[in-house]
Amino acid sequence: MWEQIQKALDSWIKEEPLEVQNCYFPLFVTKGALEAEEDHVEGFAPEVAWVTKSGETDLAEPIAIRPTSETIMYPEFAKWLRSHRDLPLKLNQWCSVVRWEFKYPTPFLRSREFLWQEGHTAHYTLEEADDMVYAILELYRRVYEEILAVPVIPGTKTEAEKFAGGLRTTTVEAYIAGSGRAIQGATSHNLGQNFGKIYNIAVEGEGGKKTIPWQTSWGLTTRSIGVMVMVHSDDQGLVLPPKVAPVQVVVVPIVSKTCPLSELQSFIDQVKKELRSANIRCKVDDRGNQSPGWKYNHWEQKGVPLRLEVGPRDAAANTVMVVRRVDGVKASKPVNGLGNAIRNELDDIHRVMFAKASAARDSKVVQVTSWSDFVPALNDDCLVLTPWCSPKNQKAEDEVKEKSREESLALLGLEAEDERTATSLAAKTLCVPHDQPALPAGTKCFFTGEEATCWCLWGRSY
Amino acid sequence: MWEQIQKALDSWIKEEPLEVQNCYFPLFVTKGALEAEEDHVEGFAPEVAWVTKSGETDLAEPIAIRPTSETIMYPEFAKWLRSHRDLPLKLNQWCSVVRWEFKYPTPFLRSREFLWQEGHTAHYTLEEADDMVYAILELYRRVYEEILAVPVIPGTKTEAEKFAGGLRTTTVEAYIAGSGRAIQGATSHNLGQNFGKIYNIAVEGEGGKKTIPWQTSWGLTTRSIGVMVMVHSDDQGLVLPPKVAPVQVVVVPIVSKTCPLSELQSFIDQVKKELRSANIRCKVDDRGNQSPGWKYNHWEQKGVPLRLEVGPRDAAANTVMVVRRVDGVKASKPVNGLGNAIRNELDDIHRVMFAKASAARDSKVVQVTSWSDFVPALNDDCLVLTPWCSPKNQKAEDEVKEKSREESLALLGLEAEDERTATSLAAKTLCVPHDQPALPAGTKCFFTGEEATCWCLWGRSY
Repeated sequence: MWEQIQKALDSWIKEEPLEVQNCYFPLFVTKGALEAEEDHVEGFAPEVAWVTKSGETDLAEPIAIRPTSETIMYPEFAKWLRSHRDLPLKLNQWCSVVRWEFKYPTPFLRSREFLWQEGHTAHYTLEEADDMVYAILELYRRVYEEILAVPVIPGTKTEAEKFAGGLRTTTVEAYIAGSGRAIQGATSHNLGQNFGKIYNIAVEGEGGKKTIPWQTSWGLTTRSIGVMVMVHSDDQGLVLPPKVAPVQVVVVPIVSKTCPLSELQSFIDQVKKELRSANIRCKVDDRGNQSPGWKYNHWEQKGVPLRLEVGPRDAAANTVMVVRRVDGVKASKPVNGLGNAIRNELDDIHRVMFAKASAARDSKVVQVTSWSDFVPALNDDCLVLTPWCSPKNQKAEDEVKEKSREESLALLGLEAEDERTATSLAAKTLCVPHDQPALPAGTKCFFTGEEATCWCLWGRSY
Repeated sequence: MWEQIQKALDSWIKEEPLEVQNCYFPLFVTKGALEAEEDHVEGFAPEVAWVTKSGETDLAEPIAIRPTSETIMYPEFAKWLRSHRDLPLKLNQWCSVVRWEFKYPTPFLRSREFLWQEGHTAHYTLEEADDMVYAILELYRRVYEEILAVPVIPGTKTEAEKFAGGLRTTTVEAYIAGSGRAIQGATSHNLGQNFGKIYNIAVEGEGGKKTIPWQTSWGLTTRSIGVMVMVHSDDQGLVLPPKVAPVQVVVVPIVSKTCPLSELQSFIDQVKKELRSANIRCKVDDRGNQSPGWKYNHWEQKGVPLRLEVGPRDAAANTVMVVRRVDGVKASKPVNGLGNAIRNELDDIHRVMFAKASAARDSKVVQVTSWSDFVPALNDDCLVLTPWCSPKNQKAEDEVKEKSREESLALLGLEAEDERTATSLAAKTLCVPHDQPALPAGTKCFFTGEEATCWCLWGRSY
């Protein structure tokens, strides 16, 4: 699944107009480089894994495993970038990073090592850097919506939630109906000139004047797979969107004592050929030691979008029975033109899955203008849009977090003893959505009562 | 370049009949799992990097960074494999590994972190495992010869040189004319049942009897890029084989005061379109601040296989001047049908590069039947084929190593003070080549004088 995501995103970033180049930088970073940027190190240092020995020998100085690669790449940028003509520089790497999380590790969502891509670019102007940030955010939206069939809300993080050491952070936020929680999908940061200052990156500008480039960084991780799993799965197991499913179609021969596999083989080969010629990822489950019913369950659990049942009557009629994982709908289809029909079917399944997830999400995004409705909306599993004084008001944001935590405990009749439960009940800002509802002049912040400057999206989150 | 290598090898291993599946296992391994196999740990332990801290906190137990993943994957194999019907299991991962080498690190050839793929398979029979080992070795030969234009000698390692903990190791060995040394290109191991025993991998066989699967592992690293660079480069810089060149064709507009870029633009666009439609990776260097001559040097150094010079006379004649990096041959070609012509030209360049490297290598592979000719042949930068008593005779192999080292120092009039030089003068067994010269009955081992069982390939190596 990660390979399918990679293939799509990798081709998009390499295409014109972005033309990002892939690269690889080391896994390790020295203590000095890692700790050069103060906010950045404060954000990451507690989670950094340190190598202190090789074999039986202590290293002269411990080295860190990358939690992200700004501090590894940018000292090199400083060596490479001389003139404004060297800009823009647009690099990306696919790798794994390590963050020794204190929070409870959860497969895909929060693991101590995870796979991701990290893009790092440098531009001559702030505007170009912003264009890059938004172009990437749009690609992240497309990964979620067009590949994973997961609707997301693009927006900008508040000051409190932005990337450590950056200027501003944009994000796509997803919603998990099963838990009533939001989850950060991927982020694209405008780093400003901050890292440039720290790592002495400067180019000779058009007029000969030294200028610090404007930088961006952006990452999408294997968490995206976890989000997709949580959004679409049901009580029978995984439900995979066709674009990302490693097997899109499984063919199950309906064999019996009176109809052994050998009698169906040439028909199955014909079906397989039809599918392969339409570039459909298919698998024939011809194992002799399991019944068709066992195989149905097996592939249902694995979330394969379409099952093709192929028995003697189908062979005689030159048709196959097509069963959709997402809704169990069954239909017989002729083998002639099957490739095309299945392509259309897979496209339709994607639309159905996206529509289903969108409806589930949309019914749980509510506008709230007064505090009294805020925590009840959270308790109703909602993401909450509120008029907000300012994304820079970190103090008020902290107060909302604390007050919502306390009020949630009270309303739910829980004790605050369990730190994990208590924390998980607090509301967090998810983003200031880029698609803003109208904000009539004079609208007040739902919490401070000050003049509101935007709608802010809140929720409990992973 | 690594992406091009990946793309080729990845598609080959996924295709029928191999149908290997890609996967990802963790970067870290516990001390217990790493040290379960005795020979294996002895081979790798001195080079292992240990993580002992996260943030400011000491870990309860140090964990190792993978030097290779047998010890990480096989405990999982033990959980997954129950029946002979679960076999074969064929997995591969693309990742980086860390080996804290004591030897002198050299970019690409010997670095403490490197990128590779590692394949790991389990089979029901020894024969199937051997088939897998050889099928992969053949793909490694193809990577070197068909992608990197580097000739290699496939063979089997001696007992002394085989993979730590395995049954036998096959290899492809390359030759670097510039240094007169051999270099190991990639290895494919039959692990036997050894790891299976250690990690309790067992399946229920056909008759209901517990059987330990036969395993293989195999890896190709970014060293392949280093080998390619050393084999093909010249005094002007890199010479890249077309299949792996990130830019296959660079277009340099010949602009001047009387002919600015704007006058050539539409012609250049036409050239570019022709090339792109033939799927040729091309780049137009239209920078205004550098002269055509500067650009010629720049792209020569970067090894781009073909340069297209495009000036006003070319535009008028609807032709381009095509210059080959490998031999400087120049020819004018019509723009009509250019894509096809360039495809053929790139194919021809590959053939020329492979032939050139093969000739350089072949002239330095000699057969030696008596000890007295052995070290002189090494001093003449040769790889030496000798009749050999047995690939299992580790003692004799060590003696050859030691004696060739001493004799080299003496013949070259060097002191043994410099440990690095001294070691690098010793002959090592590279492999017992699979393509064996005739070995008449009664042929004696060149060193022990015992009956020879095979021809063995020796050389100084990286």
